[in-house]
Amino acid sequence: MKLKIINPNTTQSMTDKIGQCARTVASPDTRIIAVSPRMGPASIESHYDEALSVPGILEEIRLGEADGVDGYVIACFGDPGLYAAREMARGPVIGIAEAAMHMASLIGTSFSVVTTLARTCNIAWHLAERYGMERFCRNVHACDLPVLELERPGSDARRIITESCRQALAQDRSDCIVLGCAGMTDLCEEISEAIGAPVIDGVVSAVKMVESLVAIRLRTSKRGDWARPLPKAYAGMLAPFAIN
Amino acid sequence: MKLKIINPNTTQSMTDKIGQCARTVASPDTRIIAVSPRMGPASIESHYDEALSVPGILEEIRLGEADGVDGYVIACFGDPGLYAAREMARGPVIGIAEAAMHMASLIGTSFSVVTTLARTCNIAWHLAERYGMERFCRNVHACDLPVLELERPGSDARRIITESCRQALAQDRSDCIVLGCAGMTDLCEEISEAIGAPVIDGVVSAVKMVESLVAIRLRTSKRGDWARPLPKAYAGMLAPFAIN
Amino acid sequence: MKLKIINPNTTQSMTDKIGQCARTVASPDTRIIAVSPRMGPASIESHYDEALSVPGILEEIRLGEADGVDGYVIACFGDPGLYAAREMARGPVIGIAEAAMHMASLIGTSFSVVTTLARTCNIAWHLAERYGMERFCRNVHACDLPVLELERPGSDARRIITESCRQALAQDRSDCIVLGCAGMTDLCEEISEAIGAPVIDGVVSAVKMVESLVAIRLRTSKRGDWARPLPKAYAGMLAPFAIN
Amino acid sequence: MKLKIINPNTTQSMTDKIGQCARTVASPDTRIIAVSPRMGPASIESHYDEALSVPGILEEIRLGEADGVDGYVIACFGDPGLYAAREMARGPVIGIAEAAMHMASLIGTSFSVVTTLARTCNIAWHLAERYGMERFCRNVHACDLPVLELERPGSDARRIITESCRQALAQDRSDCIVLGCAGMTDLCEEISEAIGAPVIDGVVSAVKMVESLVAIRLRTSKRGDWARPLPKAYAGMLAPFAIN
Amino acid sequence: MKLKIINPNTTQSMTDKIGQCARTVASPDTRIIAVSPRMGPASIESHYDEALSVPGILEEIRLGEADGVDGYVIACFGDPGLYAAREMARGPVIGIAEAAMHMASLIGTSFSVVTTLARTCNIAWHLAERYGMERFCRNVHACDLPVLELERPGSDARRIITESCRQALAQDRSDCIVLGCAGMTDLCEEISEAIGAPVIDGVVSAVKMVESLVAIRLRTSKRGDWARPLPKAYAGMLAPFAIN
Amino acid sequence: MKLKIINPNTTQSMTDKIGQCARTVASPDTRIIAVSPRMGPASIESHYDEALSVPGILEEIRLGEADGVDGYVIACFGDPGLYAAREMARGPVIGIAEAAMHMASLIGTSFSVVTTLARTCNIAWHLAERYGMERFCRNVHACDLPVLELERPGSDARRIITESCRQALAQDRSDCIVLGCAGMTDLCEEISEAIGAPVIDGVVSAVKMVESLVAIRLRTSKRGDWARPLPKAYAGMLAPFAIN
Repeated sequence: MKLKIINPNTTQSMTDKIGQCARTVASPDTRIIAVSPRMGPASIESHYDEALSVPGILEEIRLGEADGVDGYVIACFGDPGLYAAREMARGPVIGIAEAAMHMASLIGTSFSVVTTLARTCNIAWHLAERYGMERFCRNVHACDLPVLELERPGSDARRIITESCRQALAQDRSDCIVLGCAGMTDLCEEISEAIGAPVIDGVVSAVKMVESLVAIRLRTSKRGDWARPLPKAYAGMLAPFAIN
Repeated sequence: MKLKIINPNTTQSMTDKIGQCARTVASPDTRIIAVSPRMGPASIESHYDEALSVPGILEEIRLGEADGVDGYVIACFGDPGLYAAREMARGPVIGIAEAAMHMASLIGTSFSVVTTLARTCNIAWHLAERYGMERFCRNVHACDLPVLELERPGSDARRIITESCRQALAQDRSDCIVLGCAGMTDLCEEISEAIGAPVIDGVVSAVKMVESLVAIRLRTSKRGDWARPLPKAYAGMLAPFAIN
Repeated sequence: MKLKIINPNTTQSMTDKIGQCARTVASPDTRIIAVSPRMGPASIESHYDEALSVPGILEEIRLGEADGVDGYVIACFGDPGLYAAREMARGPVIGIAEAAMHMASLIGTSFSVVTTLARTCNIAWHLAERYGMERFCRNVHACDLPVLELERPGSDARRIITESCRQALAQDRSDCIVLGCAGMTDLCEEISEAIGAPVIDGVVSAVKMVESLVAIRLRTSKRGDWARPLPKAYAGMLAPFAIN
Repeated sequence: MKLKIINPNTTQSMTDKIGQCARTVASPDTRIIAVSPRMGPASIESHYDEALSVPGILEEIRLGEADGVDGYVIACFGDPGLYAAREMARGPVIGIAEAAMHMASLIGTSFSVVTTLARTCNIAWHLAERYGMERFCRNVHACDLPVLELERPGSDARRIITESCRQALAQDRSDCIVLGCAGMTDLCEEISEAIGAPVIDGVVSAVKMVESLVAIRLRTSKRGDWARPLPKAYAGMLAPFAIN
Repeated sequence: MKLKIINPNTTQSMTDKIGQCARTVASPDTRIIAVSPRMGPASIESHYDEALSVPGILEEIRLGEADGVDGYVIACFGDPGLYAAREMARGPVIGIAEAAMHMASLIGTSFSVVTTLARTCNIAWHLAERYGMERFCRNVHACDLPVLELERPGSDARRIITESCRQALAQDRSDCIVLGCAGMTDLCEEISEAIGAPVIDGVVSAVKMVESLVAIRLRTSKRGDWARPLPKAYAGMLAPFAIN
Repeated sequence: MKLKIINPNTTQSMTDKIGQCARTVASPDTRIIAVSPRMGPASIESHYDEALSVPGILEEIRLGEADGVDGYVIACFGDPGLYAAREMARGPVIGIAEAAMHMASLIGTSFSVVTTLARTCNIAWHLAERYGMERFCRNVHACDLPVLELERPGSDARRIITESCRQALAQDRSDCIVLGCAGMTDLCEEISEAIGAPVIDGVVSAVKMVESLVAIRLRTSKRGDWARPLPKAYAGMLAPFAIN
């Protein structure tokens, strides 16, 4: 099985880390391809960044389809472009917020999300609502760390995030923690041990979910609003995105 | 007051029609600027089209800010890029689905949406939920007309849409109709007379809402997740979108 | 356009203040008529007061209809008698809680209400639910000020309310403030400057909403439960309210 | 125990019928007092009628308090003035829609409401929501009968209502029927036998609920927004309603 | 009327206390039969205990049906086996959480639950949701007392629970308290006096509700999923539970 | 990995079929153990059957724990005893309704459930609500087939179920079908081909979910109400279930 993970930002060190973590949990017969798009923001920390990460994601889906990819993971906690990607792909497409929240709801009665900047908390709440997971989400907490601080050697991010997780758990009286950024994927086990509670990372969760859907031969239904987009002209710089 | 209406698709005839309808209701001291973006899809009929209309919308916001625009309308019933636009603009930004649903909830206990293609009905439902208007929305109906059929001279669209509105009203026992496409803006009064019930068009609704917000000096709050995006690098074709 | 604002309590100083604030935002061709009913409570601070303000409101609607009024504002944050008034009026009728909450939802992801007495907080919550605005309302705060304290020269109300707004914003991490009493209408801009966030007053919001609805020719739908009341006898002191 | 049933309309034949049905289920030591107010509409079929029934109800509560009444039933399916009445009364006050919906939720997984005019269906839905009973309410059906048709000798109401109940049950696949008008109280057992399903009448339900609350010494909490109204002046015709 | 109260745990002292409290509020013509099942847990403090209390409850229902019982109360705050019991009984069956929450919603705008162990708080929330009472439930508080501590002579439970109720009321700004354990039934009046607010006990509430339903001849509807179970074989130790 | 599937009814042919279907999708290193409990109903078609299937399920969990099982599937669409099982097991426990609904929400915007008897439809709705999947569930349809008819050689079940699925899809305009009975597991692919839409079977879905959770080392959180039950005495026939 070919499984493509798209890190929607263009920071290669994060893409590499995501690819490595994914490979530790993938089945032996799964080939993990981790990429950043050719265009878009260095990190995603606003609706603006999120919106402008989508063209690059959709290009990667198009390339993936040509390359025979069986399923996709969108590895940013805002799940940007998820529905547009589902329209374009034959196989399943899963967002990491989606995957992590679903997994959390299977092992606890409630979860707390710990994410980077406060301004993205609403995005997490909207996704929780969209996926039906709002009832399990006790709260969304920000560590006030920019996304790329997670990539900076010598950063104090690891300690700060662990502490935020510990506080979230106590304050919310929740059962487990959902990590709110793909860049935290390598911290999952360590934090879980430190705080003594399950910690859910969306990257590895999404990899297993895509593998599961492929294994039981479930693909995105094309009967409704995720049918393939209709052919039409595209103008200007976006002309290459036209559907024929 | 300078009020810019962005028709997110690149079909100029629709943009012209939208501008004309807007001018019929605008206050004497409001100058309406109606534009299509320089890039993007000819019409918006999928999540894919919607996502790829956003870069062009955001470029128009950037140009508008440089041009001293006081407020914006996004004139596509999916309200694409609304939150990203709010991050970038100083004045208020209103989507036409948002405007029409709010107005409908002020004059009836329930409304029915009549839109173009069935595959976009879910988008309308999601917006209704997002805006708190789900409780007023009895149903979303599709006429199975492509968006550009509304622009084709000699098309039967006018009759088909009127009939759909009449049926929606009877079937849902609703109080009024919300038109689910910017391209229907010129049909509003005629359909209202034909079916004997209020019909709400988002274009004119949004124009009056933006004027109202500007008149009482309310702008998007910059305290939360609609604060101005953080400066960062953008790669590839999207490099011009970088925030400094 | 004739726009009648009904202050449902009988305190003339508040009615005058409401009229003045309304006139500062009204369009040049709008004539503002601000009145108190001939009967009812001096202030509205309970379900009992609210219920007994309604006959006076409905009398004013009847007089307004005879007088050719184009639209109405009910200027008490409990929006008393709103639906009954809609049944009686030809033009639109808007409540100030309704107007303020809708406006707030257009410029922020969340709002906090700051009102007078704690016993009225539930009324605000019920209205938020009724209008679909509950999802935007983070909390309702009381200053523990009686309504008429806002009218007392030399009162400390201005300082107390400003402080409550500041605290509400911080505590709720909300984007903006909705003022929960018509008597606060003159404090809106001052508080906004003091706390550095948008503050929404229902009186001016409602004036612009009624003007907007009239401008785009939308009236209360008479198809549903807001149809004109059926003719019938009324007994006793209320006999003059009989519909013929 | 003195239990006062207030029929909010001024039609004495309906008040008598309500009193008789209440007495058939009351405990031996309960004295039922059934009254119509001295003022207000002959029947309640709109928000307007409902609002104007409240002064008369509140007068009856005041008289009841002076008379040592232990608890009250408001016998109109819109439950008009319920919260204002709770502020004024020492003992419990129950509305018949409230009582019927609660009882229905204890004996079935879902109920259908069958009421008089279509224009009141929304009122029933709003009450269901207010009481937390929306999840049990499958639908609200109107028979298109004016309320006073139920009082007209020789009317076909009995047959029409029975038929509506039968259809509602089949169409909604619900477990039981809630009768949506106090004037249907005498039809309850007969319809239940005719359609072979439980039929719930709010009048008898409310009588037993008030008796139950009194028996276990539960009264309206005065800690929140149902505390006694504050003293203040009332103007004009409503001056007698002033609280001292 | 024969009314059987099933205390689902096997601790006889609690059953006796429940029976005594029930008798103080029962109507003169009601005969209260209070029992513990012959099998099952000594106390109910987990989903496991709850699930394994159900066979014993169902046996008691079967015996009650043979004995001509008119209605049942399940006297554990988790309302275990409620729907299965409704399938088996001819008369009404009420759970004490159900009864207490309904009663609370009739006398206050909000309630707080005070229960025993923190691990059961979710069960209370799920029931509140199931019964439509979630909107009235401000919070669920645990005293961290094991259930049987309530039965231990010399225990400090009375003081601890009273203190928890006082704190819950203040912290939640709620109108009244719902006691979250059948074993607290004898503390109800005392706590109410101590904290100066209504306190609702499910045991006495349920007794009056069953009496009310029987008085107005309402029984569980057998049209839906509470119809009598279908005949079938049962294997092993549970063979006696087979339906013929 | 040892994965135990518990078919909560005692019908061995269904257990065998479930085991076979599970093995077709399991990973090479997963050993599937499919069992029926030693006690309980031959099929589950009521709350009564469901409640009485739980002791047998819990016994199988106890045996599984002694046997080193890594994770469990409860293979009845009512997910009986799920939370009690989670308290007792070290590894994850997944119900098949839970698994199927989650999977469906990942590949479509909406699903329809097709189940056996109408009286179980409410159970499916309650589970959808519990899992946050209610917003994706358009409707629950019954084929009016008893569960064991699925096991009867020569039965017409296959045709009837396929037809129900086809109708459900058309009527609900949903994107995919969720099969509402473990006994339908072998029909999944065939129906999918017949109706041209994804069909989701809970048995294979749950197998992949348990495998996924084990692969990423997520176990039920023991911090909240799914902690191990407290030690206590059990009386009568259920004495062996006592926790030490």
